[in-house]
Amino acid sequence: MTGNRHHIVVIGGGFGGLNAVKTLQEHDVDITLVDKRNYHLFWPLLYQTAMAGLSPADIAAPLRSIFKRRENVRVLMAEATDIDPDEQRVRFASGEEVGYDSLIVAAGFRYHYFGNDAWERVALDLQGLDKALAIRRRILAAYERAEQESDPALTAALLTFVIVGAGPTGVELAGSIAEMARHTLKGDFRRIDPAQTKVLLIEAADRVLPAFDPDLSVKAQRSLEKIGVTVLTGAMVQDIAADHVRVARDGATERIATHTVMWAAGVKASPLGELLHRRTTAPIDRGGRVQVAPDLSVPGYPNLYVIGDMAHVEQAGQPLPGLAPVAMQQGKHAAAQILRRIGGEETQAFRYVDRGVMATIGRAAAVADIRGLRLSGFTAWLLWLFVHLMYLVGFRSRLFVFLQWAWSYATFGRSVRLIVGKDEHAPPRAPIEP
Amino acid sequence: MTGNRHHIVVIGGGFGGLNAVKTLQEHDVDITLVDKRNYHLFWPLLYQTAMAGLSPADIAAPLRSIFKRRENVRVLMAEATDIDPDEQRVRFASGEEVGYDSLIVAAGFRYHYFGNDAWERVALDLQGLDKALAIRRRILAAYERAEQESDPALTAALLTFVIVGAGPTGVELAGSIAEMARHTLKGDFRRIDPAQTKVLLIEAADRVLPAFDPDLSVKAQRSLEKIGVTVLTGAMVQDIAADHVRVARDGATERIATHTVMWAAGVKASPLGELLHRRTTAPIDRGGRVQVAPDLSVPGYPNLYVIGDMAHVEQAGQPLPGLAPVAMQQGKHAAAQILRRIGGEETQAFRYVDRGVMATIGRAAAVADIRGLRLSGFTAWLLWLFVHLMYLVGFRSRLFVFLQWAWSYATFGRSVRLIVGKDEHAPPRAPIEP
Repeated sequence: MTGNRHHIVVIGGGFGGLNAVKTLQEHDVDITLVDKRNYHLFWPLLYQTAMAGLSPADIAAPLRSIFKRRENVRVLMAEATDIDPDEQRVRFASGEEVGYDSLIVAAGFRYHYFGNDAWERVALDLQGLDKALAIRRRILAAYERAEQESDPALTAALLTFVIVGAGPTGVELAGSIAEMARHTLKGDFRRIDPAQTKVLLIEAADRVLPAFDPDLSVKAQRSLEKIGVTVLTGAMVQDIAADHVRVARDGATERIATHTVMWAAGVKASPLGELLHRRTTAPIDRGGRVQVAPDLSVPGYPNLYVIGDMAHVEQAGQPLPGLAPVAMQQGKHAAAQILRRIGGEETQAFRYVDRGVMATIGRAAAVADIRGLRLSGFTAWLLWLFVHLMYLVGFRSRLFVFLQWAWSYATFGRSVRLIVGKDEHAPPRAPIEP
Repeated sequence: MTGNRHHIVVIGGGFGGLNAVKTLQEHDVDITLVDKRNYHLFWPLLYQTAMAGLSPADIAAPLRSIFKRRENVRVLMAEATDIDPDEQRVRFASGEEVGYDSLIVAAGFRYHYFGNDAWERVALDLQGLDKALAIRRRILAAYERAEQESDPALTAALLTFVIVGAGPTGVELAGSIAEMARHTLKGDFRRIDPAQTKVLLIEAADRVLPAFDPDLSVKAQRSLEKIGVTVLTGAMVQDIAADHVRVARDGATERIATHTVMWAAGVKASPLGELLHRRTTAPIDRGGRVQVAPDLSVPGYPNLYVIGDMAHVEQAGQPLPGLAPVAMQQGKHAAAQILRRIGGEETQAFRYVDRGVMATIGRAAAVADIRGLRLSGFTAWLLWLFVHLMYLVGFRSRLFVFLQWAWSYATFGRSVRLIVGKDEHAPPRAPIEP
């Protein structure tokens, strides 16, 4: 780096940050990409790693290898903890800091338990690769424990899996657990029958996939029920503990015995959202998202952009959803605005081009809404497969994930069924040490 | 299970235990396979998982899926902590227990730090998948930390990797770190040059691969030096600390600054070896291995067999080495002896058929000694590749590992370069949280 060129710092190597850097890298600027992880994660397939269908390496690409040949891109594995927009500096947890000419903040989301710290301690979520592996570990260990259990009530509780929140992540988790139980684990055990597995999907709204068209919600619920998922809509979680959840529905309260609760109900912006609010007085919404100007910059700071799950952007009176395509388009847009400013041009307002939404329910079943064209079943699943493969970063991932899928589809197998690492909240009694 | 058929318990799903069960499963007996892990691990390729070349799922197969269609095989994920050979019972850490008619103990080895607990706390070893992932994490994090370090002495220490012990595991680790530094990481960093990486291989004997023919030792050392490994033979480790090792050689003592020490110097039998010694008075050797009768049973207990890395068996005046082929042949032999006894026949003495030894040094380099036929270089590497692929359990693993290798060979890439999980002994200063 020359030190004289315009220096852009990008915080976050997710869909937003990655696309920002890819847009900037072709130009005569210096870029520092900061991430606390050393890889870009393909979040839409993370649930498949949790469900023992894919290995971490299939859905993650080292950031350094993506930008290996880009001399003007520096990757820094560090956790940004402070931003000073007046001094134009970013500070890291290590105490070190870096200055910038322009900054793009794309630090993403975190799961949000609405202040219930006790729930967060016992529930599992998909906040990154480590958490996905924890889900895999907990589910597989529950079956191992159940196989050795003589108490039928405890056995039933061990084979009960509860997913809170029926957005795409919750639907995908529920569908794949039900399929794993009925197909992959068939014949694996001698005392228990994995087909006895209960998968409960709890949703506060009156239908699954509330952000989708109601027709598709109906189809998705039907598909879920067909593969054995019990869907409870209009249900509010009242408590999550190590051995049960309590759910209120139709005026009554039910206690469900379970040792595995997965949380897919609420997300919030990275804490850097609140930090920017304090540092710039830019308003934030209830989810901690920064309400940015139409060009995605922070009001009053034309060289500071916030994008993706951290940005609150309204279009047609609705805030844009926290989806990969939104973050990708915003990453490209923010990068383009920085280049326009360097060139002395006016910035432009961001406009999201909605190419559709989709969610997969299980083997050969999905729902998709492509600009009003509503698909379900096998066609939607093929489309889902194609779109996700095409978006996977790097040829290697594409090839391997495709082979893995073809293999799983042909054999119903899940070869990644390994219990690695330790679970601090393992089911009771047997000290299962992998 | 009927409860009337002969019930054989096998402790350990490694090469020995797996082959014992595979021999027994065809017969009219009940088998319980006990392992604290839920997978069979292909140990010979574990170093490739540590070196970011393979994913855990490439070298591990879930035990349940291996024996899915064998109704007479029950898999129990549990840790055996006690054996009562008179009552014929095995007890588990969970407090539960199981009775047996015949027992095969194949609980394998553990790394042995010769009583230096402090070394064990800071050094890394290849004791299973979790430990292999810890090595990957530590090495990749050292590069990330070095990239952000301004002190040249600390940078050099972070880029110094020390391997203690030049048996096959040590040689393979040293060779693959050196290759990763020179090829895979080339261009990944902006401040540091990974080619400056120092890889030191420390061996107490006067040559590397002391169990191989001296000619091959010379060739292996030459190959290692060619790819940048510094080999220190006749060197004794005097201390291992978080930021250095001390090594005595030629009467002098040298302090080497490093944050990554890998231990491949000594192994010991599972603690079940000592337990059997106390329970049966069978003698054990200094490595905790049980000195079994010629048929591999424990003297005085004809229905109790000890095999693999837990058994001390001499042939031609030499104890058999702790290799996969020895364990595999012993597993089959012990199973056959149990079947002979059920059939009222006399047992037979075990005889190891040595088909050769081999070790790989890096990309397209290996040494092999096949019954006196000594190979080195590319031919030996092709042979190594072929043999290891053929022995991998399950078609899926074979196919995927082969594709991964072909890919790595063509591109020099290591796509599994992910830092997942936490390192309790991370390099100093920067709190790298993956």
